[in-house]
Amino acid sequence: MDDQQDVSRRTAEEQVPGFGSVEEARSSASRAYELDRKHVFHSWVAQGAFKPMVVTAAQGSHVWDGNGDRLLDFSSQLVNTNIGHQHPRVVAGIVEQAQRLATIAPHHVNDQRSEAARLIAERTPGDLDKVFFTNSGAEAVEHAIRMARVHTGRNKILSRYRSYHGATALAINVTGDPRRWANDRGTEGTTHFFGPFLYRSAFHATTEAEEEQRALQHLQQVIELEGPGTIAAIILETIPGGPGIIPPPPGYLRGVRELCDLHGIVMIADEVMCGFGRSGHWFAIDESGVAPDLLAFAKGVNSGYVPLGGVAISARVAETFEERPYPGGLTYSGHPLACAAAVATITAMADEGIVENARRIGETVLGPGLAEIAARHPCVGEARGRGVFWALELVTDATTREPLAPYAGTSAAMAEMMAECKRQGLLPLMVSNRIHCAPPCTITADEAREGLRILDEVLKIGDSYTV
Amino acid sequence: MDDQQDVSRRTAEEQVPGFGSVEEARSSASRAYELDRKHVFHSWVAQGAFKPMVVTAAQGSHVWDGNGDRLLDFSSQLVNTNIGHQHPRVVAGIVEQAQRLATIAPHHVNDQRSEAARLIAERTPGDLDKVFFTNSGAEAVEHAIRMARVHTGRNKILSRYRSYHGATALAINVTGDPRRWANDRGTEGTTHFFGPFLYRSAFHATTEAEEEQRALQHLQQVIELEGPGTIAAIILETIPGGPGIIPPPPGYLRGVRELCDLHGIVMIADEVMCGFGRSGHWFAIDESGVAPDLLAFAKGVNSGYVPLGGVAISARVAETFEERPYPGGLTYSGHPLACAAAVATITAMADEGIVENARRIGETVLGPGLAEIAARHPCVGEARGRGVFWALELVTDATTREPLAPYAGTSAAMAEMMAECKRQGLLPLMVSNRIHCAPPCTITADEAREGLRILDEVLKIGDSYTV
Ligand SMILES: Cc1ncc(COP(=O)(O)O)c(C=O)c1O
Ligand SMILES: Cc1ncc(COP(=O)(O)O)c(C=O)c1O
Repeated sequence: MDDQQDVSRRTAEEQVPGFGSVEEARSSASRAYELDRKHVFHSWVAQGAFKPMVVTAAQGSHVWDGNGDRLLDFSSQLVNTNIGHQHPRVVAGIVEQAQRLATIAPHHVNDQRSEAARLIAERTPGDLDKVFFTNSGAEAVEHAIRMARVHTGRNKILSRYRSYHGATALAINVTGDPRRWANDRGTEGTTHFFGPFLYRSAFHATTEAEEEQRALQHLQQVIELEGPGTIAAIILETIPGGPGIIPPPPGYLRGVRELCDLHGIVMIADEVMCGFGRSGHWFAIDESGVAPDLLAFAKGVNSGYVPLGGVAISARVAETFEERPYPGGLTYSGHPLACAAAVATITAMADEGIVENARRIGETVLGPGLAEIAARHPCVGEARGRGVFWALELVTDATTREPLAPYAGTSAAMAEMMAECKRQGLLPLMVSNRIHCAPPCTITADEAREGLRILDEVLKIGDSYTV
Repeated sequence: MDDQQDVSRRTAEEQVPGFGSVEEARSSASRAYELDRKHVFHSWVAQGAFKPMVVTAAQGSHVWDGNGDRLLDFSSQLVNTNIGHQHPRVVAGIVEQAQRLATIAPHHVNDQRSEAARLIAERTPGDLDKVFFTNSGAEAVEHAIRMARVHTGRNKILSRYRSYHGATALAINVTGDPRRWANDRGTEGTTHFFGPFLYRSAFHATTEAEEEQRALQHLQQVIELEGPGTIAAIILETIPGGPGIIPPPPGYLRGVRELCDLHGIVMIADEVMCGFGRSGHWFAIDESGVAPDLLAFAKGVNSGYVPLGGVAISARVAETFEERPYPGGLTYSGHPLACAAAVATITAMADEGIVENARRIGETVLGPGLAEIAARHPCVGEARGRGVFWALELVTDATTREPLAPYAGTSAAMAEMMAECKRQGLLPLMVSNRIHCAPPCTITADEAREGLRILDEVLKIGDSYTV
């Protein structure tokens, strides 16, 4: 590749943005590391043995580690920096609002909140024209479920296995991945069903059409046997993300919509990870042509530059709360600084064709490139995704589809590949037996190709573990 | 008062910060209002009839409404802008960090997060030396409870009536105020007990010492009858805030600490509202001389300029997660921009003696002033508080203590007083039958006196409702 120089990992002699020298960056990193180990308690890990990487700087599709080395960010951190790092217009939007009015309570009107709500309502499907803002994806899910329960007067929530909805007690309870296990205190009104996932079909299907049809039949049976009148909502990630980046068959969501309509069940689309450009559409559900009753978002709405999440609400559900108080709230609902970042992000994404870029990169670089990689490497069982949202499902055996790491864990092979990716200057996400490739929606074709080149190298390690 | 000119409400001919003219501010406000009513879904209210006030600007102890009128902020919004509005050092801290590195995932080390954790750990009591960051108070409570449950291997949570802990499902379930009612789906492992509140004693006590002793006896009985071995944690606001600003008798928290120690129960202090200077101490619990096992914080930690909350963790609880993964996490845990705002806030509060100012204002202006007001107005049953954290408990009858508004509602008297406060240029919080006075910790003595002067006027309305 001609442009390899431009996009490859920087060497340590070069500068780290924001620091006078690499030495300066390293010394700041070492103090940060030391204080971190002493005072910071981290998510999801055992604290003792945890050896986190320092990040000292970030620009566009790159981050710099504590050694001053540059890495191509195929993680978008936790799949949230959809607009890339330090986008100048979002930074400017934050700076301007910080200087004008950083915060104001949710019960007062604020112009940035109003504008953010307008920009979101313009883009959400159907009549989802009201927005309730939260700080996070988990809070968005919590409030969406509360709205559904009050709206229907019912309690039960159906959600998918292979899903992640956040880590507050209720959100982790509807979650259908191993992060739920240690928190499971009985189902408390939540029931899990199987979604379509042809590669590991729960329905013994062999084609996508069959998987779709059987998954809908299964959901219909679960509804029937749970009692349609007991079910407040079905919540599902439009494209399950953390648990595997699993795009649904083309008619599945329409089928879910129809079942919801039939039984007066609220359909909640969790677009926390797949929304705001990630899938190559503003919302992943756009591809299906259906509108949910509630749509939970976070992450991409302002690329996480300031914590923000929320629920977009259909006219029908909003109507319930016209005369009846909504029994929920939070101190930072519609936070002006967070909303100003959303206004800047959405405006820049629209002006700069960033959603279209994500789609194009998916269709012309990542999709075909990962398919080639899958064909070339025995350890890659499947490459799947949309836009800038892809997973490589790794196996030790293409026939039995035995995963390269257990469902709820990791393995030597995965750890080695992660280390080698970093050594070669690539930062993907490794989840169980999968490599998730989720670069910013702003990634260039050359950058994407550089990531593929490194993956192609690194997967030789995985191949050596196949039978 | 000589300085009345300086602190009283600005007239509409004057400027609104950030706008070229009052007309400009008004026209921005009217567009913001219109979009708000169309697209923004608000906390806790019926959406239809809700007529929120626009806030166009804020500086120090003041906010400007949609008409261009200035109001003295005795609410600190939702009791969170402890450092006042638009503090230049916090704004500068946010601006600098936004330009450097707005966000990075929680599993990487970030210097601002490390530094914020250090500054917090330095100030929290006892050996609470590790910090888990969240976005909000509710998330802090959720994670504190999870830590306590995993640490003890027990499920049940005891919490107080007259408490507020947030609005996610679990946080609202431990809450002991009317906001819980519409969300109550059975107690699901939470049990409520009565705390000390002499003015409305649950124990028929007539002195503070008696209230303290009986409240502890009551708690001891609840523990005994619930089964000590079933109780993971006791969570309580050090000074219950939203439900009434009720400082505990001097020995109460030590008594709770002893009961917790006796039974291996985790003591969680919720300092979301009363922490970070509000009570005239860094933490309200400092006054008691005891240390909890977990301390939940939010709001004042960075005055809410960027959403941030967290849990400070004792060595004993942290130890549990040295080798065992912590089963929780969130995308924005330790968000760099939010943490940079905390670093700037805590540093400025320390350098500028802002906590001491809050204490001094409480001891020399608000405390004595509100006591005088209570003595003068038949409708004021009690004035109570600490620092810049006060409540006036309003009654129709000083003998029967009949509240001026029902426990879970409001009344014409309260609504009239709120309107009159605003008309005279004061913005307090009205909660049920109480006026909460919670100005920024940076408020000057003159500003505080101006607030008292207006309250003194407005309470004549309340007096007219007494029997
Ligand atoms: C689909 C989905 N929902 C909810 C969440 C929870 O969001 P947060 O971590 O902001 O609470 C996530 C986080 O990854 C997610 O991917
Ligand atoms: C004591 C206390 N705990 C928790 C919360 C919840 O915080 P948040 O609104 O940030 O979720 C509040 C909010 O007022 C509070 O006062």
